[in-house]
Amino acid sequence: MRLLEERILRDGVVRKGNVLKVDSFINHQMDIALFEEMAKEWKRLFQGKPINKILTIEASGIGIAAIAAREFGVPVIFAKKAKSINLDSDNYSTNIQSFTHGKVYEVIVSKKYLSSEDHVLIIDDFLANGCALMGLLEIVERSGATVEGIGVAIEKGFQRGGDMIRERGIQLESLAIIESMDENGGIVFRR
Amino acid sequence: MRLLEERILRDGVVRKGNVLKVDSFINHQMDIALFEEMAKEWKRLFQGKPINKILTIEASGIGIAAIAAREFGVPVIFAKKAKSINLDSDNYSTNIQSFTHGKVYEVIVSKKYLSSEDHVLIIDDFLANGCALMGLLEIVERSGATVEGIGVAIEKGFQRGGDMIRERGIQLESLAIIESMDENGGIVFRR
Repeated sequence: MRLLEERILRDGVVRKGNVLKVDSFINHQMDIALFEEMAKEWKRLFQGKPINKILTIEASGIGIAAIAAREFGVPVIFAKKAKSINLDSDNYSTNIQSFTHGKVYEVIVSKKYLSSEDHVLIIDDFLANGCALMGLLEIVERSGATVEGIGVAIEKGFQRGGDMIRERGIQLESLAIIESMDENGGIVFRR
Repeated sequence: MRLLEERILRDGVVRKGNVLKVDSFINHQMDIALFEEMAKEWKRLFQGKPINKILTIEASGIGIAAIAAREFGVPVIFAKKAKSINLDSDNYSTNIQSFTHGKVYEVIVSKKYLSSEDHVLIIDDFLANGCALMGLLEIVERSGATVEGIGVAIEKGFQRGGDMIRERGIQLESLAIIESMDENGGIVFRR
């Protein structure tokens, strides 16, 4: 998606350790007008699929998922990272290794909100090694719901997550796929 | 706001310890159509104010804030709870006591996204003892930005947060204010 690629080139910052900072428009400050254009693009790409729910993971996926859900006219469920006294014990849960924070955490989705009747679109901001998305896929599988596809804003094409998901036959639509990047500002997108 | 009150009466569940579970439509599964109506109501209530940014806190405020921001045509910043290698050290930070999780955590907002030029609307899902909102107010104050108001979905009117904020002369618009509630399902709203 050209609009997103141009924005990454303009405002993204490459840091040591293959870190791409996009916190001025994606995951700290959120450019909602950009999210709307991304939502429209996913609507086009997943046209004809009987999606009735969007699933994401807290925290930085939530804003994008909410705007996408408005476009699709469906509710969002966000997988929760920590146990809260407000949550039922009757949950699907899985462990996810975080690249960003360097630790393993448990995420949960209440069994009340995901069942074999559901046709799910998974949305997230980043795809790198795929741990977060694999965790969400596991949760959807356990619920018996159907994964209709995965929409990602930015995929790091040089890490293995994207290939792992595509090999499973899942429709994965990453709006910008980074082939390579370096700290001198060079970012190359996959064509 | 009648629509939200009716939804709370229909789908909210009161639990021991003054816990109101609204995770079927607000903070686990999110009813985006409802959020749009809430956003329109805040737009009406804060009419004429020169709001150019919405500030919220991860995680459950983000969805509501994103949909509100679409209505206002402004970006969202969400205060982050944990230190991440993706964040700059140049942040405003404050400590917040969590009622839900029973612990103190640090939240941060990058200095890049909040300055004395900004006119901020703060949005959150819940207001009870006011700790989260007081933390956000402190961050906005330090940045030199102007707080134009606070929009909350559900206020627990029997806890002190709402009064604390109103005493400071801030326009606080809670779309549903619960006067009292009990585990037998009785919920009384403020008129």
